[in-house]
Amino acid sequence: MFRHIVLFTWVAEATEEQKARVTEGLHGLPAVIPEIRRYEFGADAGMAPGNHEFALVADFDSEEDYLVYRDHPVHQAVIADAIRPIMAGRASVQYKV
Amino acid sequence: MFRHIVLFTWVAEATEEQKARVTEGLHGLPAVIPEIRRYEFGADAGMAPGNHEFALVADFDSEEDYLVYRDHPVHQAVIADAIRPIMAGRASVQYKV
Repeated sequence: MFRHIVLFTWVAEATEEQKARVTEGLHGLPAVIPEIRRYEFGADAGMAPGNHEFALVADFDSEEDYLVYRDHPVHQAVIADAIRPIMAGRASVQYKV
Repeated sequence: MFRHIVLFTWVAEATEEQKARVTEGLHGLPAVIPEIRRYEFGADAGMAPGNHEFALVADFDSEEDYLVYRDHPVHQAVIADAIRPIMAGRASVQYKV
Protein backbone atom coordinates (compact mmCIF):
# COMPACT_ATOMS: atom_id res chain seq x y z
CA MET A 1 0.00 0.00 0.00
CA PHE A 2 1.09 3.55 -0.65
CA ARG A 3 0.08 6.35 1.73
CA HIS A 4 -0.14 10.09 1.31
CA ILE A 5 -0.31 12.31 4.41
CA VAL A 6 -0.79 16.03 4.42
CA LEU A 7 -1.19 18.34 7.41
CA PHE A 8 -2.31 21.96 7.10
CA THR A 9 -2.37 25.11 9.14
CA TRP A 10 -4.84 27.82 8.18
CA VAL A 11 -4.44 31.57 8.05
CA ALA A 12 -5.80 33.36 11.13
CA GLU A 13 -8.57 34.98 9.05
CA ALA A 14 -9.92 31.63 7.78
CA THR A 15 -13.65 31.41 8.56
CA GLU A 16 -15.54 28.31 9.69
CA GLU A 17 -17.37 28.47 6.37
CA GLN A 18 -14.09 28.35 4.46
CA LYS A 19 -12.86 25.41 6.56
CA ALA A 20 -16.17 23.62 5.94
CA ARG A 21 -15.63 24.09 2.21
CA VAL A 22 -12.36 22.14 2.49
CA THR A 23 -14.15 19.26 4.21
CA GLU A 24 -16.98 19.28 1.67
CA GLY A 25 -14.56 19.35 -1.24
CA LEU A 26 -12.52 16.43 0.09
CA HIS A 27 -15.69 14.46 0.87
CA GLY A 28 -16.52 14.32 -2.80
CA LEU A 29 -13.21 12.95 -4.00
CA PRO A 30 -13.48 9.19 -3.30
CA ALA A 31 -16.60 9.06 -5.48
CA VAL A 32 -14.79 10.55 -8.48
CA ILE A 33 -11.30 9.06 -7.96
CA PRO A 34 -11.73 5.27 -7.65
CA GLU A 35 -7.99 4.83 -7.05
CA ILE A 36 -8.55 6.02 -3.45
CA ARG A 37 -8.67 3.02 -1.11
CA ARG A 38 -8.99 4.81 2.24
CA TYR A 39 -9.54 8.51 2.79
CA GLU A 40 -9.71 9.91 6.30
CA PHE A 41 -9.44 13.57 7.16
CA GLY A 42 -10.39 15.87 9.99
CA ALA A 43 -9.61 18.82 12.19
CA ASP A 44 -7.01 18.58 14.92
CA ALA A 45 -8.46 17.67 18.30
CA GLY A 46 -6.71 20.58 20.00
CA MET A 47 -4.82 18.51 22.54
CA ALA A 48 -1.32 19.76 21.79
CA PRO A 49 -0.14 23.33 21.27
CA GLY A 50 1.85 23.79 18.08
CA ASN A 51 -0.08 21.12 16.19
CA HIS A 52 -1.15 21.57 12.62
CA GLU A 53 -4.90 22.20 12.25
CA PHE A 54 -6.09 19.64 9.74
CA ALA A 55 -4.96 16.18 8.62
CA LEU A 56 -5.64 13.99 5.61
CA VAL A 57 -4.49 10.38 5.21
CA ALA A 58 -5.10 8.78 1.81
CA ASP A 59 -4.21 5.16 1.00
CA PHE A 60 -3.67 3.74 -2.48
CA ASP A 61 -2.70 0.38 -3.92
CA SER A 62 0.39 1.86 -5.52
CA GLU A 63 2.47 4.96 -6.07
CA GLU A 64 0.96 5.17 -9.58
CA ASP A 65 -2.55 5.34 -8.13
CA TYR A 66 -1.43 8.11 -5.80
CA LEU A 67 -0.20 10.08 -8.82
CA VAL A 68 -3.59 9.68 -10.49
CA TYR A 69 -5.14 11.21 -7.36
CA ARG A 70 -2.53 13.95 -7.03
CA ASP A 71 -3.03 15.15 -10.57
CA HIS A 72 -6.78 14.55 -10.85
CA PRO A 73 -8.53 17.74 -11.99
CA VAL A 74 -11.28 17.50 -9.36
CA HIS A 75 -8.63 17.16 -6.63
CA GLN A 76 -6.71 20.05 -8.10
CA ALA A 77 -9.91 22.12 -8.09
CA VAL A 78 -10.43 21.47 -4.35
CA ILE A 79 -6.84 22.57 -3.71
CA ALA A 80 -7.20 25.73 -5.80
CA ASP A 81 -10.70 26.75 -4.71
CA ALA A 82 -10.92 25.64 -1.07
CA ILE A 83 -7.49 24.85 0.39
CA ARG A 84 -5.06 27.34 -1.10
CA PRO A 85 -7.08 30.47 -0.21
CA ILE A 86 -6.80 29.69 3.54
CA MET A 87 -3.58 27.65 3.71
CA ALA A 88 -0.82 29.04 5.94
CA GLY A 89 1.39 25.96 6.27
CA ARG A 90 1.64 22.45 4.87
CA ALA A 91 3.58 19.34 5.88
CA SER A 92 3.49 16.19 3.79
CA VAL A 93 4.93 12.68 3.47
CA GLN A 94 4.29 9.84 1.03
CA TYR A 95 5.44 6.41 2.16
CA LYS A 96 5.06 2.71 1.52
CA VAL A 97 2.98 0.93 4.16
CA MET B 1 -11.26 5.69 16.25
CA PHE B 2 -8.68 8.23 17.31
CA ARG B 3 -5.62 8.88 15.16
CA HIS B 4 -2.25 10.40 15.92
CA ILE B 5 -0.05 11.57 13.06
CA VAL B 6 3.47 12.88 13.37
CA LEU B 7 5.86 13.91 10.60
CA PHE B 8 9.54 14.57 11.20
CA THR B 9 12.46 16.19 9.47
CA TRP B 10 15.96 15.19 10.55
CA VAL B 11 19.06 17.27 11.07
CA ALA B 12 21.45 17.22 8.11
CA GLU B 13 24.06 15.34 10.17
CA ALA B 14 21.69 12.46 11.01
CA THR B 15 23.29 9.16 10.02
CA GLU B 16 21.54 6.16 8.48
CA GLU B 17 22.35 4.30 11.68
CA GLN B 18 20.58 6.94 13.75
CA LYS B 19 17.55 6.85 11.45
CA ALA B 20 17.50 3.06 11.70
CA ARG B 21 17.44 3.39 15.48
CA VAL B 22 14.19 5.37 15.21
CA THR B 23 12.61 2.63 13.11
CA GLU B 24 13.81 -0.10 15.47
CA GLY B 25 12.56 1.77 18.51
CA LEU B 26 9.12 2.33 17.03
CA HIS B 27 8.90 -1.28 15.87
CA GLY B 28 8.97 -2.45 19.46
CA LEU B 29 6.12 -0.28 20.72
CA PRO B 30 3.00 -2.21 19.63
CA ALA B 31 4.22 -5.22 21.61
CA VAL B 32 4.50 -3.22 24.84
CA ILE B 33 1.57 -0.81 24.38
CA PRO B 34 -1.54 -2.91 23.67
CA GLU B 35 -3.67 0.23 23.25
CA ILE B 36 -2.13 0.63 19.78
CA ARG B 37 -4.59 -0.65 17.14
CA ARG B 38 -2.66 0.23 13.96
CA TYR B 39 0.88 1.52 13.74
CA GLU B 40 2.41 2.37 10.37
CA PHE B 41 5.54 4.40 9.88
CA GLY B 42 8.17 4.90 7.25
CA ALA B 43 10.54 7.19 5.41
CA ASP B 44 9.26 9.64 2.83
CA ALA B 45 9.35 8.25 -0.71
CA GLY B 46 11.18 11.32 -2.02
CA MET B 47 8.60 12.26 -4.63
CA ALA B 48 8.00 15.85 -3.56
CA PRO B 49 10.56 18.50 -2.63
CA GLY B 50 9.84 20.15 0.70
CA ASN B 51 8.29 17.03 2.21
CA HIS B 52 8.97 15.95 5.74
CA GLU B 53 11.28 12.91 5.95
CA PHE B 54 9.45 10.42 8.12
CA ALA B 55 5.81 9.69 8.97
CA LEU B 56 4.03 7.78 11.70
CA VAL B 57 0.29 7.07 11.82
CA ALA B 58 -1.03 5.46 15.00
CA ASP B 59 -4.68 4.48 15.51
CA PHE B 60 -6.38 3.95 18.86
CA ASP B 61 -9.89 3.11 20.02
CA SER B 62 -10.13 6.36 21.94
CA GLU B 63 -8.42 9.59 22.91
CA GLU B 64 -7.73 8.01 26.30
CA ASP B 65 -5.84 5.13 24.68
CA TYR B 66 -3.79 7.64 22.71
CA LEU B 67 -2.83 9.34 25.96
CA VAL B 68 -1.67 6.01 27.40
CA TYR B 69 0.59 5.66 24.36
CA ARG B 70 1.78 9.27 24.43
CA ASP B 71 2.86 9.06 28.04
CA HIS B 72 4.09 5.45 28.06
CA PRO B 73 7.66 5.29 29.40
CA VAL B 74 8.90 3.01 26.60
CA HIS B 75 7.52 5.44 24.01
CA GLN B 76 9.07 8.35 25.87
CA ALA B 77 12.39 6.49 25.87
CA VAL B 78 12.29 6.09 22.06
CA ILE B 79 11.60 9.82 21.73
CA ALA B 80 14.42 10.77 24.10
CA ASP B 81 17.03 8.28 22.91
CA ALA B 82 16.37 7.92 19.16
CA ILE B 83 14.14 10.72 17.84
CA ARG B 84 15.09 13.86 19.71
CA PRO B 85 18.86 13.64 18.99
CA ILE B 86 18.25 13.88 15.23
CA MET B 87 14.95 15.78 15.05
CA ALA B 88 15.00 19.06 13.12
CA GLY B 89 11.26 19.62 12.63
CA ARG B 90 7.98 18.07 13.69
CA ALA B 91 4.38 18.43 12.49
CA SER B 92 1.53 16.66 14.26
CA VAL B 93 -2.24 16.27 14.32
CA GLN B 94 -4.58 14.15 16.43
CA TYR B 95 -8.07 13.66 15.06
CA LYS B 96 -11.19 11.54 15.30
CA VAL B 97 -11.61 9.15 12.38
